[in-house]
Amino acid sequence: MQPLVRFFSSARVIDGNAIAKQVLEEVRGDVNALYEQYGRKPGLAVILVGARGDSQAYVKKKVDACKACGIKSFSYRLPETAKQKDVLEIINELNRNPECHSTLVQLPLPKGMNQNAVLDQIAFEKDVDGFHPFNLGELCITTRVPRFVACTPTGCMEMLKRSGVPIEGRSAIVLGRSQIVGLPMAMLLQRANATVTIAHSKTPNMPELCKKADIVVAAIGKPQFVKGSWLKKGAAVLDVGINLIRDPSKKSGLRMVGDVDFESALPQAGVITPVPGGVGPMTVAMLMRNTVESARRFFKAQGPLSKEAREAAAKEPEYTCPTACHG
Amino acid sequence: MQPLVRFFSSARVIDGNAIAKQVLEEVRGDVNALYEQYGRKPGLAVILVGARGDSQAYVKKKVDACKACGIKSFSYRLPETAKQKDVLEIINELNRNPECHSTLVQLPLPKGMNQNAVLDQIAFEKDVDGFHPFNLGELCITTRVPRFVACTPTGCMEMLKRSGVPIEGRSAIVLGRSQIVGLPMAMLLQRANATVTIAHSKTPNMPELCKKADIVVAAIGKPQFVKGSWLKKGAAVLDVGINLIRDPSKKSGLRMVGDVDFESALPQAGVITPVPGGVGPMTVAMLMRNTVESARRFFKAQGPLSKEAREAAAKEPEYTCPTACHG
Repeated sequence: MQPLVRFFSSARVIDGNAIAKQVLEEVRGDVNALYEQYGRKPGLAVILVGARGDSQAYVKKKVDACKACGIKSFSYRLPETAKQKDVLEIINELNRNPECHSTLVQLPLPKGMNQNAVLDQIAFEKDVDGFHPFNLGELCITTRVPRFVACTPTGCMEMLKRSGVPIEGRSAIVLGRSQIVGLPMAMLLQRANATVTIAHSKTPNMPELCKKADIVVAAIGKPQFVKGSWLKKGAAVLDVGINLIRDPSKKSGLRMVGDVDFESALPQAGVITPVPGGVGPMTVAMLMRNTVESARRFFKAQGPLSKEAREAAAKEPEYTCPTACHG
Repeated sequence: MQPLVRFFSSARVIDGNAIAKQVLEEVRGDVNALYEQYGRKPGLAVILVGARGDSQAYVKKKVDACKACGIKSFSYRLPETAKQKDVLEIINELNRNPECHSTLVQLPLPKGMNQNAVLDQIAFEKDVDGFHPFNLGELCITTRVPRFVACTPTGCMEMLKRSGVPIEGRSAIVLGRSQIVGLPMAMLLQRANATVTIAHSKTPNMPELCKKADIVVAAIGKPQFVKGSWLKKGAAVLDVGINLIRDPSKKSGLRMVGDVDFESALPQAGVITPVPGGVGPMTVAMLMRNTVESARRFFKAQGPLSKEAREAAAKEPEYTCPTACHG
């Protein structure tokens, strides 16, 4: 430990929790303003199939965030043995439901379900996760404004923006090319006029490529993969990885780490996101923002409620989903 | 001129005309095989609005290629003054027409028409140009098989393949990020496991980036922009540019050149496509291939015609489009 040297040379750590809190406060304000204007509240439906612990925890976080922001949430919990057609039926119902402006299916789905078929069933106007090919396609086309962009990369962009990291004309590398993070991340950086390289498991020279990049996004699912020695001095480093590694010093015997070797990266990077407390909380915050933006589009098309309807709606109890499987 | 040195060190020039001819012959064989199996022929509809000379020439090339391959073509020619709703009506009719398996609208559309709205109206199952956001989105997702990919980048991939250029694990740079060439090109190279960099007008260091690339695709619309000195020795260079420059030595006073400075690139590249006679003819050939693949999917779903229907169909005159605006 060389505290003095480190004090002068180490990266600014981006506080994902603090930025997420800020975003959630803004969303809460937007929800109130929409209610003032239209007499309606945004609604988010979450479908969970099976009983994976991590998925349940993620769903709980999303539902809690809805509550905190004043967004109506409808959560559907189906058993592991549910049939694909049951999920599709719920999605169809939600596609028609005017109270629901956003629908997400918690991934992964149980084996035997066709993830693409399920995701494609969500009306692309309600595809708050931005996983529908139509929405991903619109993201790729610079002359279009995409309706929805996946929440994790949107959160990364928001952190760059609020941390004052310049993007236009800079070089960026995205490690990983998934539909959920890597690919949309590359497209967002590209839209912001960075020169983007998409690296992946078949890339032979990742350290060399990272060394050239002003912005490094690690979303490759390998614990502590990116070393400080790979980084250009002063680079912005966004760590999307969530990996559990053995750590006998912890009560659980496990420790959560990212795809970046934080210790060695810290003195080299200009700004860096930690794991946990970096990208993670931003994902839920951006989900809330996407939900509100979706509702705004629907409300704009539908127009405000009449005075009478507004008064009637105010007296109504909170919406309860009529479906038997509603949890 | 140093003929000897050049003989030993210059690039292999990829003959787009020859490869396109080969592809068209294969397509002709596929059309015949489909007719044998299903008693049906693939159909391509081309919609042209206005009277631009270049657009008319492109449409003629496409219709001629259909004839040469045994594909039915329906061409619709509307005046410059046509309304957007007229175009949408024709597209809707074609979406329902079981004889049409592929629909394309020749771009650019006249000013005042919303290109996105028109392209989105084409059923994505018939979007032979691959411009629909749904099809572009599927192309981006490596776990999916896209129905259609834009013809120019598909033609580039075919030329790389037939010229024996390895792609997996190699570095590629795509100059340009249009929906029609650059973006889908980058996605195709990425799917083939190249490490792809997308460069564009805001990229400050293109020469330096090109120097690192095993594969360079120039689709940036600037005549003779990429210089030989930018290239890595032995790189594969695909030139998508079509630019007219002044040339007093020509009768027309004009000469067609690509986005690559061919003369200086020739001694440096490993393989290179010329302009004209490189990427251009491949685009039409891939359009024919896309049309046949689309028809194959429709035929597979519909099943073969009965013996009676097949005999009746064989006696029918060639399909004539009932729409008044058909040209």
